[in-house]
Amino acid sequence: MNAAPKPLSLHEDRLFAADPLQRAIARRLYAQAGALPIVSPHGHTDPAWWATDAPFANATELLLVPDHYVFRMLYSQGVPLDALGIPRADGSRATFDPREAWRMFARHFHLFRGTPSSLWLNHVFHDVFGLRVRLDASTSDFYYDTITDALQKPEFLPRALFERFNIDVIATTESPLDTLEHHQAIRNSGWGGRVVTAYRPDPVIDPEHEQFPDALRRFGELTGEDVHDWEGYLRAHRQRRAFFTQMGATSTDHGHPSCATADLAPDEARALFERIVRGRFSAADAETFRGQMLTEMAAMSLDDGLVMQIHPGCFRNHNRDLFERFGRDKGADIPLRTDYVQALKPLLDRFGNAPGFRLILFTLDESTYARELAPLAGHYPCLFLGPAWWFHDAPEGMWRFREQTLSSAGFYNTVGFNDDTRAFLSIPARHDVARRVDCAFLAKLVAEHRMDEDEAAEVAVDLAYHLPKRAYRL
Amino acid sequence: MNAAPKPLSLHEDRLFAADPLQRAIARRLYAQAGALPIVSPHGHTDPAWWATDAPFANATELLLVPDHYVFRMLYSQGVPLDALGIPRADGSRATFDPREAWRMFARHFHLFRGTPSSLWLNHVFHDVFGLRVRLDASTSDFYYDTITDALQKPEFLPRALFERFNIDVIATTESPLDTLEHHQAIRNSGWGGRVVTAYRPDPVIDPEHEQFPDALRRFGELTGEDVHDWEGYLRAHRQRRAFFTQMGATSTDHGHPSCATADLAPDEARALFERIVRGRFSAADAETFRGQMLTEMAAMSLDDGLVMQIHPGCFRNHNRDLFERFGRDKGADIPLRTDYVQALKPLLDRFGNAPGFRLILFTLDESTYARELAPLAGHYPCLFLGPAWWFHDAPEGMWRFREQTLSSAGFYNTVGFNDDTRAFLSIPARHDVARRVDCAFLAKLVAEHRMDEDEAAEVAVDLAYHLPKRAYRL
Amino acid sequence: MNAAPKPLSLHEDRLFAADPLQRAIARRLYAQAGALPIVSPHGHTDPAWWATDAPFANATELLLVPDHYVFRMLYSQGVPLDALGIPRADGSRATFDPREAWRMFARHFHLFRGTPSSLWLNHVFHDVFGLRVRLDASTSDFYYDTITDALQKPEFLPRALFERFNIDVIATTESPLDTLEHHQAIRNSGWGGRVVTAYRPDPVIDPEHEQFPDALRRFGELTGEDVHDWEGYLRAHRQRRAFFTQMGATSTDHGHPSCATADLAPDEARALFERIVRGRFSAADAETFRGQMLTEMAAMSLDDGLVMQIHPGCFRNHNRDLFERFGRDKGADIPLRTDYVQALKPLLDRFGNAPGFRLILFTLDESTYARELAPLAGHYPCLFLGPAWWFHDAPEGMWRFREQTLSSAGFYNTVGFNDDTRAFLSIPARHDVARRVDCAFLAKLVAEHRMDEDEAAEVAVDLAYHLPKRAYRL
Repeated sequence: MNAAPKPLSLHEDRLFAADPLQRAIARRLYAQAGALPIVSPHGHTDPAWWATDAPFANATELLLVPDHYVFRMLYSQGVPLDALGIPRADGSRATFDPREAWRMFARHFHLFRGTPSSLWLNHVFHDVFGLRVRLDASTSDFYYDTITDALQKPEFLPRALFERFNIDVIATTESPLDTLEHHQAIRNSGWGGRVVTAYRPDPVIDPEHEQFPDALRRFGELTGEDVHDWEGYLRAHRQRRAFFTQMGATSTDHGHPSCATADLAPDEARALFERIVRGRFSAADAETFRGQMLTEMAAMSLDDGLVMQIHPGCFRNHNRDLFERFGRDKGADIPLRTDYVQALKPLLDRFGNAPGFRLILFTLDESTYARELAPLAGHYPCLFLGPAWWFHDAPEGMWRFREQTLSSAGFYNTVGFNDDTRAFLSIPARHDVARRVDCAFLAKLVAEHRMDEDEAAEVAVDLAYHLPKRAYRL
Repeated sequence: MNAAPKPLSLHEDRLFAADPLQRAIARRLYAQAGALPIVSPHGHTDPAWWATDAPFANATELLLVPDHYVFRMLYSQGVPLDALGIPRADGSRATFDPREAWRMFARHFHLFRGTPSSLWLNHVFHDVFGLRVRLDASTSDFYYDTITDALQKPEFLPRALFERFNIDVIATTESPLDTLEHHQAIRNSGWGGRVVTAYRPDPVIDPEHEQFPDALRRFGELTGEDVHDWEGYLRAHRQRRAFFTQMGATSTDHGHPSCATADLAPDEARALFERIVRGRFSAADAETFRGQMLTEMAAMSLDDGLVMQIHPGCFRNHNRDLFERFGRDKGADIPLRTDYVQALKPLLDRFGNAPGFRLILFTLDESTYARELAPLAGHYPCLFLGPAWWFHDAPEGMWRFREQTLSSAGFYNTVGFNDDTRAFLSIPARHDVARRVDCAFLAKLVAEHRMDEDEAAEVAVDLAYHLPKRAYRL
Repeated sequence: MNAAPKPLSLHEDRLFAADPLQRAIARRLYAQAGALPIVSPHGHTDPAWWATDAPFANATELLLVPDHYVFRMLYSQGVPLDALGIPRADGSRATFDPREAWRMFARHFHLFRGTPSSLWLNHVFHDVFGLRVRLDASTSDFYYDTITDALQKPEFLPRALFERFNIDVIATTESPLDTLEHHQAIRNSGWGGRVVTAYRPDPVIDPEHEQFPDALRRFGELTGEDVHDWEGYLRAHRQRRAFFTQMGATSTDHGHPSCATADLAPDEARALFERIVRGRFSAADAETFRGQMLTEMAAMSLDDGLVMQIHPGCFRNHNRDLFERFGRDKGADIPLRTDYVQALKPLLDRFGNAPGFRLILFTLDESTYARELAPLAGHYPCLFLGPAWWFHDAPEGMWRFREQTLSSAGFYNTVGFNDDTRAFLSIPARHDVARRVDCAFLAKLVAEHRMDEDEAAEVAVDLAYHLPKRAYRL
């Protein structure tokens, strides 16, 4: 199909406006913000990588199999997940040839035109692996071999890449049931990279999770608390939060179907919890319990200083058949319309003005940016806005985030960028996209005489480095 | 008011960015995509035009009376519909002078500044009728005479215009009750233009339509099936779909107030249908029945291969008094907030992964582009996104469609353009606007180094020509 | 922190696109529209200023204390309201030094980067007070003294500023309980400034307002009507509307939590009102009553010609603790998702086609611009769209308003700009921002060959001057 390979380049002005005035300003801003160390306060990398420092297997296992942005797009155009080696729900895997899977990917690479995946992947191909031809059917094997060979070299081991990527600090996300042994191993190893955890208690908080009863039992075993008693359950959380804090955590994270919060009287909360642990609860009970636990988590944050994050509003596992065959996190999560104004009121009535409390809000429903989130963050001292998330973590989505939050929240009620990824190699690419888009956005403000360039430069540096460190207390 | 007529021109760079770099790229892309044959897979033109090839009457009857985009705007500024010759609900018409109506339109033409109607109309005036002065009060009669005279000439007959417009294929939309005699006549005529139908069964599916009982009776007569029996009713649909397929149909179309689907057990479906045909149903029953029928239509599509379209979310005939006096389709339809995530789940649970099934989704609720539609289309193999529809079929709306669907759905889960119009003469103008906006959008991506120009050119050609043909199986 | 003061300038091309072609067009359009007299048909200035013509106190009391856009942002970053001298709910005030408060503001001025507050404030600093250095910690005292000193001079008295600002007419907003003595005093004074009132009956219409019973009692005393009787209550409104009309009012204004309207049968309306006045009503009753009163107000508008405005969809006083301590209007109002399509139907069914009736709609929910508001205004003769409101009254918000309403409503179903402010000194700045954004928007249309420049110039002048005068019957 493609006669001769096409050249692959990363233009130094990518993502800057074509207009020469804006572009020149963006370049100067990026010169100050672009090369700052990476602060990654929220994400899903695997701490085992840096604990063991073992080499990655091959191009397919590293770049394709774990990336649901990539395989969801291939699936949407009829590529079967089995052909890509995606593991099934029962842990088995179809017979598959990683080289063939990579060829399938290469043949469909045009599907990603204009998407963030193409930005991230081309950045990885170019900057991490030194590739200078475009990926397509004709270059598929060359790519596969180049990447797979490189991964065996010492400079491509996880710790070497961490250092090469100039990562100041990275946070992973773990369940309260996690023993954090990899984090412990990293600390014990004497290696200097800063890898911290974050407390994500969804599995022991969401009564509708299919593993909730079992998770609760293990939560009790791990903490030695009677977690079927309301007070014991709360003590168990406090205990694990303290342990996570020892392992570097500065934040908690909560992924709920909505942003609903509740603030029940103690007796009501206890009674609700009893219904939950006995498994005799309605869907409304489950929703109220999750909401009550957000308020309980906020109360604990007041004591231990962990910064709270809420990532609400996703319909998980929308494709029933695919869920049954392949399980969770297979690209079938779909955003939901999400309310914040009524939903957060119970929590904010309790802690909205509490000194030191900090709550970072995310959304998959962009219609809330200008209507709800920016007005809330532009008033409540505790509230900050997380960056454009997931489906919106793209140049257009980042631009809309800024464009729709600026007037009511300004820049300083936002927290800079989160890569929120398990795709380790794409982390520099993702931060680079965010920094470029912010510089382009600021350049427009400067070019339209809404801000002086020295102010914009300060904002660009703050967004890239200081705001995430400050917001997450890193 | 207007001393001398102002010149009318169609600039060769219209709708391209002012920035010289983007404009130059857009020009080159448009040079490849702009002149491709027109593929019109969904619209509301009248097949009688090409069956009879009779001349159009005059400027007012052709361009004003049938165009609800035009007369709704005039009405919004106080122009009575009777003065424009709009037919009333009872089929009567106020005494009106088409030349006077055209003068009324001309005096108000400034109302359309910046709207798509002005783009389309000026394109028609300039390219179809060769007019070179702007329409205003002073040029009204000149316009009326020029257009009306032209329409009597052979080169302005429907078939001649079809050929001049370089239409590869056009789909009309008919009710199951339609005998398709005009389509038959076109086929029998030996004329080479390709005009196909599409199956739009709303009148025999929507129990809340005032003519539903009568339509159902005629549906039974036409098919010889007992359509008051659930199985007979479904057989009647299968029979008419087969007939429509013979008459060239490759698609069905469904215009429901919401996108709700249902997947009832056979007994429940039968019981619901019985309540419907006996006229003893609630609003919720009607909604469920429409939803169930979407799933039944999907099941039939699996068998006969017709591509399914859903155009949901419109409050029809919002203006009660106007509806009583003038009937349907008088510019008083207003979009509704529309859910897709919950609404489509029953249908997708049945057929979401079925090979060969294809469902093209439209929306009047742009807040769903990035939040719901692009994530759904970027995952489910059956789902594709129709273009910016109706109120959003404008340069700004098209831009928002691309800008908000790109990151999750890419270009290749969209289907190119639909003109969706009964305004035949505007079809080239409408496709031209869509192609120009897509080229401008792609030019921005190229100028910002997110895509190489050869890739953008391929996408531009695919959007203009290959994707609609492929998506609609034309 | 800031070694030497930075220069402050207002660039003559601010808010125009960087692209030279667009900028040149915008400049020419602005040359025609920028300096037109100010028409301010809706706002919240205090008529006492022009009645008494007393000097403003100092920089802090004039620019900081009354501006909830400013202190909400400071509060969001931890600045206590007491430190800024914000009055408490009980009318008391913390001991505070206005100069220290100003210093606090100056130290945090970077928070406003990119926000409309920075545009407005810098415009006031530069153009009203002649300041030529940027506000920051180092220039705080210089600012405070310069502004405070200037305010004592005759040319900074309210009437002098009114004239200097070239205000053609300004409308204030008063409760039916207001005696309008300041408006009377202005009229009696012989001063030529045109200051009119507007009828805002929320306090005597909203049964959920905590002062409703008392307000109703005073409404009866003031009018001599039995306002606890439904007919008497309506007569009282008619009487006060007539009085407001004498005092120059051309409009009414209604700030409800939703846009719900109702059109009850007379008996039902009477029965509902009886429940309301007896204080035995549900939340649904209150909502229906507010909705019924919108329809009653529309009926009265048909008689007295007052233009009706609805400003719906705000959750007032969201921060419970702050409300208890500081009362209303303290920057804690948050927009709500708002429906118009179903909500307005009862009122539109009654009066949607009534000659002479005019209803201007506002929204805090931008998702309704393209989906609901523009289609409604592009059809109903009575409906017009108010400009981007409150949280959206910013360059980005104005651009979105135009960009999302243009295709269905055009320019001529909008009403030009409202400053809607109590910050008198910022009025020229606010109108200037609106005019510049409209010129920039029109310049893009011209540069992209969608409109000729003479048409754009006419639109720019209409938006700045003629449309507000016409829409508000001023």
